[in-house]
Amino acid sequence: MSYPQARLQDDDLAGTLLANRAFSETLCAPLTPEDMGLQACPEVSPPRWHLAHTTWFFETFILKPHVPGYRPLDPRFEYLFNSYYNGVGEQYPRPRRHLLSRPDTATVLAWRRHVDEALADLLSRSATPELAALVRLGIEHEQQHQELLLTDLKFNFSHNPLYPQYQPREDQADKAPALSWLEYHGGLVTIGAGGPSSTNSFYFDNETPRHRQWLEPFALASRPATCGEYLAFIEDGGYQRPELWLSDGWAWVSQQRIRAPLYWFLNDGLAEHYTLAGRRPLNLAEPVTHLNYYEADAFARWCGKRLPTEVEWEHAAAARPVTGGFVENRRYHPAIATPGEGPRQLFGDVWEWTASAYLPYPGFQPAPGAVGEYNGKFMCNQMVLRGGSCASSRDHLRASYRNFFYPHLRWQFSGVRLAQSMEAPDATSATAP
Amino acid sequence: MSYPQARLQDDDLAGTLLANRAFSETLCAPLTPEDMGLQACPEVSPPRWHLAHTTWFFETFILKPHVPGYRPLDPRFEYLFNSYYNGVGEQYPRPRRHLLSRPDTATVLAWRRHVDEALADLLSRSATPELAALVRLGIEHEQQHQELLLTDLKFNFSHNPLYPQYQPREDQADKAPALSWLEYHGGLVTIGAGGPSSTNSFYFDNETPRHRQWLEPFALASRPATCGEYLAFIEDGGYQRPELWLSDGWAWVSQQRIRAPLYWFLNDGLAEHYTLAGRRPLNLAEPVTHLNYYEADAFARWCGKRLPTEVEWEHAAAARPVTGGFVENRRYHPAIATPGEGPRQLFGDVWEWTASAYLPYPGFQPAPGAVGEYNGKFMCNQMVLRGGSCASSRDHLRASYRNFFYPHLRWQFSGVRLAQSMEAPDATSATAP
Amino acid sequence: MSYPQARLQDDDLAGTLLANRAFSETLCAPLTPEDMGLQACPEVSPPRWHLAHTTWFFETFILKPHVPGYRPLDPRFEYLFNSYYNGVGEQYPRPRRHLLSRPDTATVLAWRRHVDEALADLLSRSATPELAALVRLGIEHEQQHQELLLTDLKFNFSHNPLYPQYQPREDQADKAPALSWLEYHGGLVTIGAGGPSSTNSFYFDNETPRHRQWLEPFALASRPATCGEYLAFIEDGGYQRPELWLSDGWAWVSQQRIRAPLYWFLNDGLAEHYTLAGRRPLNLAEPVTHLNYYEADAFARWCGKRLPTEVEWEHAAAARPVTGGFVENRRYHPAIATPGEGPRQLFGDVWEWTASAYLPYPGFQPAPGAVGEYNGKFMCNQMVLRGGSCASSRDHLRASYRNFFYPHLRWQFSGVRLAQSMEAPDATSATAP
Amino acid sequence: MSYPQARLQDDDLAGTLLANRAFSETLCAPLTPEDMGLQACPEVSPPRWHLAHTTWFFETFILKPHVPGYRPLDPRFEYLFNSYYNGVGEQYPRPRRHLLSRPDTATVLAWRRHVDEALADLLSRSATPELAALVRLGIEHEQQHQELLLTDLKFNFSHNPLYPQYQPREDQADKAPALSWLEYHGGLVTIGAGGPSSTNSFYFDNETPRHRQWLEPFALASRPATCGEYLAFIEDGGYQRPELWLSDGWAWVSQQRIRAPLYWFLNDGLAEHYTLAGRRPLNLAEPVTHLNYYEADAFARWCGKRLPTEVEWEHAAAARPVTGGFVENRRYHPAIATPGEGPRQLFGDVWEWTASAYLPYPGFQPAPGAVGEYNGKFMCNQMVLRGGSCASSRDHLRASYRNFFYPHLRWQFSGVRLAQSMEAPDATSATAP
Repeated sequence: MSYPQARLQDDDLAGTLLANRAFSETLCAPLTPEDMGLQACPEVSPPRWHLAHTTWFFETFILKPHVPGYRPLDPRFEYLFNSYYNGVGEQYPRPRRHLLSRPDTATVLAWRRHVDEALADLLSRSATPELAALVRLGIEHEQQHQELLLTDLKFNFSHNPLYPQYQPREDQADKAPALSWLEYHGGLVTIGAGGPSSTNSFYFDNETPRHRQWLEPFALASRPATCGEYLAFIEDGGYQRPELWLSDGWAWVSQQRIRAPLYWFLNDGLAEHYTLAGRRPLNLAEPVTHLNYYEADAFARWCGKRLPTEVEWEHAAAARPVTGGFVENRRYHPAIATPGEGPRQLFGDVWEWTASAYLPYPGFQPAPGAVGEYNGKFMCNQMVLRGGSCASSRDHLRASYRNFFYPHLRWQFSGVRLAQSMEAPDATSATAP
Repeated sequence: MSYPQARLQDDDLAGTLLANRAFSETLCAPLTPEDMGLQACPEVSPPRWHLAHTTWFFETFILKPHVPGYRPLDPRFEYLFNSYYNGVGEQYPRPRRHLLSRPDTATVLAWRRHVDEALADLLSRSATPELAALVRLGIEHEQQHQELLLTDLKFNFSHNPLYPQYQPREDQADKAPALSWLEYHGGLVTIGAGGPSSTNSFYFDNETPRHRQWLEPFALASRPATCGEYLAFIEDGGYQRPELWLSDGWAWVSQQRIRAPLYWFLNDGLAEHYTLAGRRPLNLAEPVTHLNYYEADAFARWCGKRLPTEVEWEHAAAARPVTGGFVENRRYHPAIATPGEGPRQLFGDVWEWTASAYLPYPGFQPAPGAVGEYNGKFMCNQMVLRGGSCASSRDHLRASYRNFFYPHLRWQFSGVRLAQSMEAPDATSATAP
Repeated sequence: MSYPQARLQDDDLAGTLLANRAFSETLCAPLTPEDMGLQACPEVSPPRWHLAHTTWFFETFILKPHVPGYRPLDPRFEYLFNSYYNGVGEQYPRPRRHLLSRPDTATVLAWRRHVDEALADLLSRSATPELAALVRLGIEHEQQHQELLLTDLKFNFSHNPLYPQYQPREDQADKAPALSWLEYHGGLVTIGAGGPSSTNSFYFDNETPRHRQWLEPFALASRPATCGEYLAFIEDGGYQRPELWLSDGWAWVSQQRIRAPLYWFLNDGLAEHYTLAGRRPLNLAEPVTHLNYYEADAFARWCGKRLPTEVEWEHAAAARPVTGGFVENRRYHPAIATPGEGPRQLFGDVWEWTASAYLPYPGFQPAPGAVGEYNGKFMCNQMVLRGGSCASSRDHLRASYRNFFYPHLRWQFSGVRLAQSMEAPDATSATAP
Repeated sequence: MSYPQARLQDDDLAGTLLANRAFSETLCAPLTPEDMGLQACPEVSPPRWHLAHTTWFFETFILKPHVPGYRPLDPRFEYLFNSYYNGVGEQYPRPRRHLLSRPDTATVLAWRRHVDEALADLLSRSATPELAALVRLGIEHEQQHQELLLTDLKFNFSHNPLYPQYQPREDQADKAPALSWLEYHGGLVTIGAGGPSSTNSFYFDNETPRHRQWLEPFALASRPATCGEYLAFIEDGGYQRPELWLSDGWAWVSQQRIRAPLYWFLNDGLAEHYTLAGRRPLNLAEPVTHLNYYEADAFARWCGKRLPTEVEWEHAAAARPVTGGFVENRRYHPAIATPGEGPRQLFGDVWEWTASAYLPYPGFQPAPGAVGEYNGKFMCNQMVLRGGSCASSRDHLRASYRNFFYPHLRWQFSGVRLAQSMEAPDATSATAP
């Protein structure tokens, strides 16, 4: 089994691995054992399950195949903590993860020790490129689950009328920079991982192959939309006007009686929301978040604009540094954009819905083996998001990174950056091949 | 607010109360904080919720109305831990109780201390009959939740492929006494609470008024049916023969693909079941349990018999001592019947499904006030069970006690005692009034 | 196969049979072929299906077993038009009956001719008591389906915003006689079919055996409750007050947002309802109908009364003539009660919900064979209704007749007659056997 | 209101219109009034509804706005027969269309006469480009419903165990030409409506604007896959191997226990299917049809190939004549491919699933007004199909035509043409703009 896209030369792979493993546990430090089992819907998982599943990943894909005579702490965990890898075997039903009170937190932590020690031992003896690639994949996988751990936790806590506070509250400014437009003239562009700026870094199979796309001229908003801008959409009857919505979106709004983004409380002049720092007033200057695709799309239509495609987004982001608000900041909420030139907050703070369905790039080949179930099999019914959020690791992100979710889901830190076409495409001047 | 049926003269009501309160916590001693939040379906509740709700009951119905200036530990708990008392206010949605990781176990235990101390203080100062009746009702209510705590826990644990062991396993004999028939000649009988043998004891409003019923001659089996007897029904194709089933029962069997009682594993010659002592082989001499009404009824029909009515059952049980296997035995599984004369195991071990729908007795009046929501409003769509189980408190039970569940449910320790009519009723000899 | 409870001596059985067969078709005369396929929910069936199924009954239970060499018109109809007789074989799924556009109406009518001729021929040659009993059962079965044909049609038509008119509208008076109370002193009474007044008439197995029951003193309302009385309940907030409702009833009201009986339109001061004569204003003097058990029970509780038990009802009705508004009147809606002595409208007009669950009488034995699936297997989860409705045949009804429906259903012409207990039962004076 | 993409210069628009209107009724000629109301699931509509809705379209978008004083036959039909145009008002619930037995077939046909006469009269007086464009849109709309009428009918009839025969059965050959590969070298291509070959013809807004796309080299199969080829996939365990399926597809296969295409019967060596000519043996040389996207995608993966993108497909089809099996052939089933050079059956016979999500083209603008709800609001969660089927009108189709369905649906005549990439895209040689 190998993951050919990972061309990692990490000076201290074992150190990076163990630091990242420790960070998962750091994120759980404010939680009680009771919190560790919460699961409010099938799409989210309990914190304890995240700690266990990321450990399962290393045990299944690295220790069992690469350490002769490796003894798992408990062979039954292979079944319990598989998420969706059909190549590995049956899975414990996802909606029931909250029912796994055993193994308890202490046992899961002991399992983590067991696996970490075996990994450290293995890496002290071997560092083949194949092994390094798998370890790197395991690190990236765990970073994804760190993000989910936080977003799942927020969703779970939001069901508790006590509105638990995971972190202290911080005050922020109340003013975002004015929105401006950045223009790009398009043409035949190249996107995908492996470009000049990404040498030696990790990327997923779904970012490949690097390939050409034709782009018409377009412009991107200088920053994500704010809560204040979104509130204007609401106050203009945005959720009551079918002409603003995709058909599936309108069905969702109507059947679920949606009136605001997830976690917002808007009754009787109140404008509050639930955050990981507890329930608090909306700050209108902050980027709006916890929108689903339907909301992002309807808001853009109300603005007379549209969402960017992922090709447009990547073309704009390729030359930009990966700066923004990340999980390392320990704020767990999108920050107000800072003034400056060029696009703000392309990376971090809020994932940006694109107008692109999550599909294979031309010539895409999934990684072989069970690890190949990582990305390719989800290439249907989902939309691409770009850029990362306040719950993403900074070194997990890059311009070519493709995140994807179903259009109705909104428990991620997902927001919206507007786009517009700069001129009607002129078909008559197009040169037929 | 009062509960007139309770005519309690308890020598040491406060002592009884506190001992019973402590027993709830004793039942949780083998559990981890993670276990305390388990809820596998809307019908069951987490152990922590049971600890909290029983505390809510005392705080709501006794401390708030009877202790001037009483300060609840947290006023938000009134909403969180109401079960179904519409008279008290809105309830936190039942299917989401597992999401209440806060208040955590330690906080719930502190709340219990807070309430216990206030109750002890109140009872040291006052003992009006009305207050005593309410305290007694609170004790009985908590005993019911102790039983549910155990049956819910069994259901929750059964979803974990590790099959957690709540208590040590004990060996038992493997032979039940032969089944014989005890005959009763019926006539105009009187049932309901308040009869000669029940003076001064507690009873619920649904056991009243004591009233007359006409009974034709009948016979009862000397003991509940065993696992071995039920296995013969299965092996005779019991679950595949529609003529043995009520129409709703056959729909349940067909749609759910039922093939055995809850917790049984019967694949490939295996005959095991999950118990609170873990997964273990079936003991064919034990009473069969975790049947629903449809299964009990179909089994009786296959035997050429029927279920007893609740009037028959109570008539037979009225003169018998309350002996059997109860929660006090700390076995949490029905025991094999012991030899002897008269009906065995009428009380304890397994609840016995009756052929009677749960309906008001003639002249029934529910208790006034919110406490009146305790029993009467459930008098539709449920069937009566009698006698108590291995998870019931001995002093919670009596011959007139009416338990009730929907006919499709089987997570209680519910079994079956056969009955038969002794002769075709002769209508021609009936004297019209 | 036999149906022992039918002790029929009909002077002209063949004539009765054919007249009744013709009446089914008469009921369909106002319908288009398009109407003949309507099915708005799984509980109702298309008119064409009723015509076919009643024919299936005669073919399956009489012609095939009793006519050597009988050739069915199409052998595939056995599967298509079986309703629920597992003893006969698989059934076409009930929710899909509307999909059987073939056989079309003309073919079904031709099948009816085919079967009617074979029946007439058979009865001209043979009239064993067993055969007569089966024919009589077939007639009664078809009468039940004539009633369903009308109530199903009303339900189906009500979904069409054109509100089709099946029959002309008739004006009625607008005043019902005042409600008075009729007292009964109870004691040891005998109920069930086969009493002195029922000699030689047909009855179903579920009305047997005739048996004794003990009754405490009670009173019955002189007539069913009216629309005006029910409107007062609504205007007093009846549908918003949980304390008036059974728990399952309150769940139904809350989840379905129920605010009025089926077919009522109460918006903005409007008080109309849909009838088989089209949409028209409520006549407040008419009996309220299309209530389910929960509504009947809540209304009675709001009145400070209760529903009668089926034993009380039958005891009161046993001596009364079978008079009232029946299907023969061709009005298809309950009439206003007429003045007079004694209970009004016990029979016909509206079925009366009783407080009794539908359960077997002591010593009940279902008829043997597939015909035995007629009644007994439904003895769970349903409540008994008594007396018949404006859609019932007069000669189908009698005092011992037991109808039964699930408590949430309300598409039958079901209403409510109030009852009350006359004194608290005095248990101390009861003589223990 | 206008539909600017229609640039119609039709010599005899009224004649075309009326001929097309008549064809809808011709398609219903073999149907009984009972058949005219069939609706087996919410996604399909009864034939009578199709006749009514297409009439509604002309009345709503042409007669009401363009004919002063126009009197609709029944003003209530506006609500009854609106499909999804929120701009027009509320809609009768789609799943209940089968409940509209009134207006009956005769009334709907009378309505069609009423509207056709008004249209003919209008067109005899006026032929503005705007009106002509709307009429043309109405014709195209009705052609789409003619196709749905047939595919819905097939779905509805398939639920009847009598397997109704809509048309006579015809014998066919049993051999398809061998599959070969046609190569295309790609580059910067132009797609979308309005190209040189499409002058003066109608097209939908979703086919615009004509625009440039970059294509890597690829090859297309010379004909759609056959039943025989698909049967080999089944026999190789195709439906049991998760590695062949998209994740959502595997969930669908597992939960629905899918084992074959819609309408196939494969039990016990049997290989039959239901067609509009009744149930008959599979002809292995015919194109496989009634696949959903998941099946088409899994089959392609099993072949080691992939589906074409819609850009590839259109690029290949742009230069080809619109020849194949269409609804005009009155065969209503895909024909066996004929030998010949170049791609066979690009048009007609079976719709071909593409790997492209249904999304707006760069610079897309929906038509203004309620007509603008025609296409754009469905641009989410659906996949593009190209080419048309045996149930499509020949003159409704063109290379730029975009059909779209949810990936799980398979009641259309939808099949699969394989594609493959010709070389790994060489990103290093890509010229950045």
